[in-house]
Amino acid sequence: METMDHSTFSAVYNMLSLGIASMLFTSIFLWVARDRVLPKYRLAVMVSATVTSIAAYHYFRMFDSFKAYETMTTNDAFLHYNVGYRYVDWFLTVPLLLVELVAVMGLAGAVQSSLLKRLVPAAALMIALGYPGDMKLGGLPASVWGLLSTIPFLYILYVLFVEISKSLKDQSPAVRKILSGARLLLIASWGVYPITFILAMNSTVAPTAAEVASREIGYSIADIVAKCIFGLMIFAVARIKSAEESKEFAAAEGH
Amino acid sequence: METMDHSTFSAVYNMLSLGIASMLFTSIFLWVARDRVLPKYRLAVMVSATVTSIAAYHYFRMFDSFKAYETMTTNDAFLHYNVGYRYVDWFLTVPLLLVELVAVMGLAGAVQSSLLKRLVPAAALMIALGYPGDMKLGGLPASVWGLLSTIPFLYILYVLFVEISKSLKDQSPAVRKILSGARLLLIASWGVYPITFILAMNSTVAPTAAEVASREIGYSIADIVAKCIFGLMIFAVARIKSAEESKEFAAAEGH
Repeated sequence: METMDHSTFSAVYNMLSLGIASMLFTSIFLWVARDRVLPKYRLAVMVSATVTSIAAYHYFRMFDSFKAYETMTTNDAFLHYNVGYRYVDWFLTVPLLLVELVAVMGLAGAVQSSLLKRLVPAAALMIALGYPGDMKLGGLPASVWGLLSTIPFLYILYVLFVEISKSLKDQSPAVRKILSGARLLLIASWGVYPITFILAMNSTVAPTAAEVASREIGYSIADIVAKCIFGLMIFAVARIKSAEESKEFAAAEGH
Repeated sequence: METMDHSTFSAVYNMLSLGIASMLFTSIFLWVARDRVLPKYRLAVMVSATVTSIAAYHYFRMFDSFKAYETMTTNDAFLHYNVGYRYVDWFLTVPLLLVELVAVMGLAGAVQSSLLKRLVPAAALMIALGYPGDMKLGGLPASVWGLLSTIPFLYILYVLFVEISKSLKDQSPAVRKILSGARLLLIASWGVYPITFILAMNSTVAPTAAEVASREIGYSIADIVAKCIFGLMIFAVARIKSAEESKEFAAAEGH
């Protein structure tokens, strides 16, 4: 029976610990830093902090759960390591990442509400449809779940790159640049997911130690980019917009 | 002896973990977000945060307690898994959910006080009378406890849909829409409880693994809807009313 060798185990374990540290302290920073933007942008910063907080909780759970690979064979550990934490995390955080992006744009109430009413359910559906495919549940082949999950993904892409691009034109050049970058970063980080999904799609046996390790490390890097770096970019946008809109704020904050 | 199979156990375990994450981070968000409404609506938001905080504590306890189903037979685990956490949680949170709803309406002191004096004891009584029925305690058949518990429930329905409807007419259309939706969501989420109670009423043996799982998953979804989604709707109402009542607030918050 194959077991995970010590250096592979350590690489994943340290990556999950990096996940905890990144998520937890980005959260604390953002919760406190919300006061360094104008009131109208604080909810956006608070949603960013909520996302990294939710992820911090799940990285603590995954870190503990992953110990199974230290003491068990790869096959047994596969049954004990709980992949559900990642899906529960994404189910909550992926819709909220889109809320951050929309909230920081400071759009008119009706426009914001219309965007959120479409993006949030689509994001939740995209994650919910991926889970049975990855878990080999629900009686359908994984490829069918993968395709079903692609439909809300394409819809999100359409809303982000067609509808939101219209609103981006009203932002200042500095804001537009960061927001376009953040949007691209978010979508690029999601790209790790279908690659992993397709690679694992046709396997009927437990993945090898190397497959488990590359998957966990890939997901962790993608999560840190999509939640911490993305959340800090949202904070940067909120700071620039605050300084643009209030001379007093700009002076007080040394802009 | 029956044991709970791994995928059923995981489904409940992940649902309880989703409960922890939803309750804990809705709490932190609402505690911090209380500053984003006018002072007169902050108590309503703080009560919402208190409800999800109490629930977060109980979900941590239930998550740990549920591990009994991983290692024991279903019969033994039934004796070890503490259903009391749910009842203690409801005993504290169900009355407070009605306080949230009444507090955010911003009614005149005498009207608010009269509503709370009737709703809070009725809600506590409703939960307290359900417990001996579910636990087969108190020497009476479960159906009798179920019927007794229905009396305060019907009284709450009367107060919510007859008395509170009068006050809803004085709210703006936007507020009335969310409050009516929140009230319906709350009552609908309570509907899971009598269904589960009646299904379990006549059984004299420990429930099967499938019964335990559907019950725990059903209660968890109902709790997340009634506490997190409901609490965030109360926050939304508080935001809208704050913007309606103060032009300065509306301008500062970008409404």
